[in-house]
Amino acid sequence: MHHDSALNVTQGVEDQPIVNPHFVRKKRRALSTDEYVAGILEGNIPVLSQAITLIESNNPDHYAQAQEIIERCLPHSGKSVRIGITGVPGAGKSTFIEAIGNMVTSLRHKLAVLAIDPSSERSGGSILGDKTRMESISSNPDVFIRPSPSAGSLGGVARKTRETIILCEAAGFDVIFIETVGVGQSETAVHSMVDMFMLLQISGAGDELQGIKRGIMEMADMMVITKADGENVNKAQLAKAQFQNALHLFPLPESEWRAKVYTCSSVDHTGLEEVWKGVEEYLDHIEANGYFQSNRNRQNKYWMYETINETLKSDFYRNPEIEKRIADVENRVLDAKLSSFIAAKELLDIYFADKHK
Amino acid sequence: MHHDSALNVTQGVEDQPIVNPHFVRKKRRALSTDEYVAGILEGNIPVLSQAITLIESNNPDHYAQAQEIIERCLPHSGKSVRIGITGVPGAGKSTFIEAIGNMVTSLRHKLAVLAIDPSSERSGGSILGDKTRMESISSNPDVFIRPSPSAGSLGGVARKTRETIILCEAAGFDVIFIETVGVGQSETAVHSMVDMFMLLQISGAGDELQGIKRGIMEMADMMVITKADGENVNKAQLAKAQFQNALHLFPLPESEWRAKVYTCSSVDHTGLEEVWKGVEEYLDHIEANGYFQSNRNRQNKYWMYETINETLKSDFYRNPEIEKRIADVENRVLDAKLSSFIAAKELLDIYFADKHK
Repeated sequence: MHHDSALNVTQGVEDQPIVNPHFVRKKRRALSTDEYVAGILEGNIPVLSQAITLIESNNPDHYAQAQEIIERCLPHSGKSVRIGITGVPGAGKSTFIEAIGNMVTSLRHKLAVLAIDPSSERSGGSILGDKTRMESISSNPDVFIRPSPSAGSLGGVARKTRETIILCEAAGFDVIFIETVGVGQSETAVHSMVDMFMLLQISGAGDELQGIKRGIMEMADMMVITKADGENVNKAQLAKAQFQNALHLFPLPESEWRAKVYTCSSVDHTGLEEVWKGVEEYLDHIEANGYFQSNRNRQNKYWMYETINETLKSDFYRNPEIEKRIADVENRVLDAKLSSFIAAKELLDIYFADKHK
Repeated sequence: MHHDSALNVTQGVEDQPIVNPHFVRKKRRALSTDEYVAGILEGNIPVLSQAITLIESNNPDHYAQAQEIIERCLPHSGKSVRIGITGVPGAGKSTFIEAIGNMVTSLRHKLAVLAIDPSSERSGGSILGDKTRMESISSNPDVFIRPSPSAGSLGGVARKTRETIILCEAAGFDVIFIETVGVGQSETAVHSMVDMFMLLQISGAGDELQGIKRGIMEMADMMVITKADGENVNKAQLAKAQFQNALHLFPLPESEWRAKVYTCSSVDHTGLEEVWKGVEEYLDHIEANGYFQSNRNRQNKYWMYETINETLKSDFYRNPEIEKRIADVENRVLDAKLSSFIAAKELLDIYFADKHK
C-alpha cells in the first residue's frame, strides 16, 4: 500500500503511539478520527494509507468515519496541482510517470500518484497494480503511489479518488497525478477532477494502435509523444507535427489555451524538463486568466451532485432490509417472474418505509 | 403529439366521455387511472399520448399516477418486437423509418416510433422533432409517432422511454422502433431496451462522415446501407462488402448471430423487404436459441436497478426542503465559499432528517 520511505516520515513523532508502522500495517487497529487527522496532517504515510482504505471500504461505519476525516482535512487541501495522465495501454504511461515523477520531486515537490480504473477485472495490472514496474519511483521518499480502488462503478471509484486527493493534499503532496487508461469513460471522470489533462501518445504506432478518440484529444491541455528515442526520433517529430495540426482544428477551449505537443524519452531522459516547463506555462496561463479557480469551482459543483447521488445510492443498497431481500427480488426478475418496475417499487417501498421509522 | 388518425381510433367508444379528442387535447382534464388504463388498452391514441405526457412530467403527482398506470399496463405489455435504429445525422434515418414503417404496417403490424435524445438543445429537430419530415408515415393510421422526451439526463430520458414502450405495447403496438443519433452514449441506453439493434450507414461517405464507433458497430445485429440508389448503387455494394468483412472480425456475440449487411433505397423502395426479412430471420434465430427471453430478463434486471437509482434521485431533488435550498448551496459552492463535500452533506442531512419525520 505504501513504500518503505513511509517509515522515515513517521520517525519524528515518537510521542504518538499510532505511528508505529508495523502495528498500523499488521494489526490495523482502528484509529480515532483525531488520530487519523493528526497523522495525515503530519504527512504520516501509513496513516494516510489507512485513511484511504477507510474511504475505499464498503462498511457503513468506515464510511461515516471517512467522511469526518475528509471534512476535517478539507481546510488543508486544495493547494496542489492536479494532473490527469491518460493514454492507451502501451503508450508508456508507467515509465513516463516514473521519469517525470523523479524529476518533479527533484524540484522539491511531493508527488502522489493515484489511478482510476473502474473495471472489475484489472487487465494485467495495467493501472499501477504492478508495483514492480515502477521500481525507481516507488523508492523515492517524496512519492506516494496508490493503485485504483478495486472493483466498483465508475461513479463510486471516481468519488473515492477525489476524496483521496483531498487527503493527499492535506498530507502535503503538492503535485497529484491521476492515471487512467485512455480507452473508456474514465477520462471524463478524471477530467472533472484535474487542473490539467495530459494525453500520452506513442510515436510510430499505426492509427489503429493510437485509438484515441476525438473527445479525449479535445480534453487534452498537453500532448506528449513518448518513446522518442533511437529509431523513433524522426517518427516522433512527424507525429508531433501531425498532432499539432490536428489540435489546431479544434475550437479554442474555455481556458483559452491551445494544447501543445511535446516529445520525450523516458529511457534517454530527454524532453522531460520541457514537458514540465510546459505544465508550468499552462498553469501560469490559467491562473492569470482566472480559469484555474473558475474550473475548480465548477468541478466542485459537479462533485456536490456526484456526492449526493452516490450517497443516495449507497444509503439504499447498504440498508439492511434491502440487503436482505435484493438478491431474491433480482432472481425473480431474472426468471421473468417479476417485472423490473414492480421489483423496483417493492424494494423502494421497503426502503422508504424503513426511513420513516 | 399524435397524428390525425388518432381521431378514428376513438370513434368506436362513444360511451366513454374521455374519448372526445378535442376535449382531451385542449383542456387536458385529469383522467382517473381507470380511465387511462381503459383508454390505453382500447388503443385510444389521445389517451395514450396523455399518459405518456404524465410519464414525462416532473410533477410528483403525475409521477405517482404514471407509475400506477404502468403497473396496470404491464400484464398487457411485452408482446412486441423492439428495434433500436441508429446512425449518424445524415444517414437517412427519417426516410428509412418512413419507408420501412409503411411496409411494416402493410404486413398488418401496428408500429410505434419513439426516440431517445437526451441533449437539452435539440439539433434542428433531428430526432423526430420535425414532423413534416415524416409526412407519409404520420398519416398512416397504424403508426404512432412520439418525439423524445424533452431535456433531461440520459438516465431519466431512457427510463421514460422504456415506460413509454410498456404503454405502447399495452395499446396494441406490436412493433416498436426506438430511434437515436449514432454519436453518443444513448446507443447503450437504447441497446438495453431492444431485442434488435439496427445500424444505418450511408454509402459513399468518407471515413470522417461515417464516424461510427467500433463499440456501436459491435452492438449491431444488422447493418443497413441506405441511399443505395442512382450513382450510389456501386458504392453501396462496395461498402456492404467492407462492412461485412469488418463485422466478421468481431467475436460472435452471445446471441450467436453474425450481423448481416443490407443495402436499400428509401427513394426507390428497393431492398426494404429484404431488410424486414432479415429482421424476422434474426428474431426467429434468437427465439429458437432462447436469447430473446434471456436478453429481456437481463434487461429487466438492468432496468430494476435503473428505476431504483432514478427514483432515489427524483425523490431527493423533488423534496420541497431540498428544492428550497439547493440553488443557494450550489451558488456557495460556485463561489468557493463551500466545499462540494460539505455542501452535499448539508443537503443530505436535511433530506434524511425530513424522511425521518
